[in-house]
Amino acid sequence: MSDNNLDLALLYLQSVVTQIEVHLKRYLAISNPPLLYQAMQYALLGGGKRFRAALAFLGAYGEEELAIPAACAVEMVHAYSLIHDDLPCMDNDDFRRGKPSCHIAFGEAIALLAGDALLTKAFETVMELKNNSLMASLELAKAAGAAGMVGGQVMDLEAENKKLTPAELGTLHAKKTGALITVALKMGALSAKREKFLASLTVYGENIGLAFQITDDILDVEGKASTLGKTPGKDVILNKSTYTTLYGLEKAKQLAKEACVRAQKAAIGLPGEEILLGLASYILSRKS
Amino acid sequence: MSDNNLDLALLYLQSVVTQIEVHLKRYLAISNPPLLYQAMQYALLGGGKRFRAALAFLGAYGEEELAIPAACAVEMVHAYSLIHDDLPCMDNDDFRRGKPSCHIAFGEAIALLAGDALLTKAFETVMELKNNSLMASLELAKAAGAAGMVGGQVMDLEAENKKLTPAELGTLHAKKTGALITVALKMGALSAKREKFLASLTVYGENIGLAFQITDDILDVEGKASTLGKTPGKDVILNKSTYTTLYGLEKAKQLAKEACVRAQKAAIGLPGEEILLGLASYILSRKS
Repeated sequence: MSDNNLDLALLYLQSVVTQIEVHLKRYLAISNPPLLYQAMQYALLGGGKRFRAALAFLGAYGEEELAIPAACAVEMVHAYSLIHDDLPCMDNDDFRRGKPSCHIAFGEAIALLAGDALLTKAFETVMELKNNSLMASLELAKAAGAAGMVGGQVMDLEAENKKLTPAELGTLHAKKTGALITVALKMGALSAKREKFLASLTVYGENIGLAFQITDDILDVEGKASTLGKTPGKDVILNKSTYTTLYGLEKAKQLAKEACVRAQKAAIGLPGEEILLGLASYILSRKS
Repeated sequence: MSDNNLDLALLYLQSVVTQIEVHLKRYLAISNPPLLYQAMQYALLGGGKRFRAALAFLGAYGEEELAIPAACAVEMVHAYSLIHDDLPCMDNDDFRRGKPSCHIAFGEAIALLAGDALLTKAFETVMELKNNSLMASLELAKAAGAAGMVGGQVMDLEAENKKLTPAELGTLHAKKTGALITVALKMGALSAKREKFLASLTVYGENIGLAFQITDDILDVEGKASTLGKTPGKDVILNKSTYTTLYGLEKAKQLAKEACVRAQKAAIGLPGEEILLGLASYILSRKS
């Protein structure tokens, strides 16, 4: 792995951050009732690494404009999940990316509804795709719902104060974070009519999703609050099963590396190969 | 209006109640994580008038089997909205249809997520339509989201302790309840390729939606808890603008009747005309 690919990936991520904002703003132009749109904008705009949008674009590498609705839709789903996650009945987080959480800024009821509206808007948005809009919408629904992300969140709630098996931990994260990461890539590929790359992109997505989660657990142990943007050590306080509690720090690092290598193998020959390779390296080396 | 049409409509509603249950159960077969599916089933199955499902079927009258995914999807959206409505940060209702609310039975976090999963499942489900699946999904997203139902709920929250103008009250309810009622009819028509009836069904839906809301306000004043299944007088306690507070009881009754007549005019010549006529009468005369 050359540093060159890592640099390319970082440049790609940066360009996505600025480009996606314009489109997200367009989809959420203030309308009636203004308060609802303000809360939706507050949660969706002006923050985040736009990692999932970048994956949607990468799935359509070279024809990214075709994937704009998919990239925006997956960011809307991600933003809705964060609003609901932060609510008092869930993680009860008052801050998100250094700003007051949506329910602190707008109250719980409006935050709840802003999340609902963002999820609904995501489906309205993905249906705008020129190619394969129905298949992409269906994939998004499966990845975001009970069989995917929401199912993973329930498993996560059930896992507090309980020791999971390695298989259970794997399933939990494959659903909770992996499904949305993978569907971003798949929706991108579908939007550019690249059905033949779906299988490889799925393997790539599942493995960077896994690597992402393991490094998250490692950062919760090793990270500093200043670079992390959140308080480390939270998993231990909640007595949660993580890759580090289950495997130990060194073995967890090895598992992350192995997942990264599997992702990179799957990326060989795909459009945007160098960036996909660099992105996998970035996930492994990230500090926040 | 003959009593015959009213009887036909009641029979139709009854047959929908039993038929829809089978299909809803099929869409929500218990899977992993079981707790999530149990909460979704708890909120979706075994209750309700299935009024919205009946409208989806009526939009495809004579070819109702084509509209099954649409009928199930609109009931899922309705059930999700009730779960979130009942949460402590919203209406804080401990009971729904004589049973403990979903968050009382499963806890707030699981109830929140069950609502999210039902909304997501609704989109997965409507996409199964054989005809016009994309158009129907898009209509559902618009009707359920910020421009429709969720927008109406935000307007409703903002309307507490505030006197609305008649125009504001009309917009609030057109969004909050009218949009989903109308889209049920439209999705039904789309599923049977009856695009030519969309305009008439929209007028019908908007007006029975209005009549439904006005009679709701009237029942809140005149109704008995025993027949209503909920506590009457709640609107007054919350100091909400309603059709009865804004217009008085007699004028409200007249407005409901006028909306009913407009709906019935629009129904003339549509497939299932007699049932549509009877259903409008039923809405006007209902006691719960």
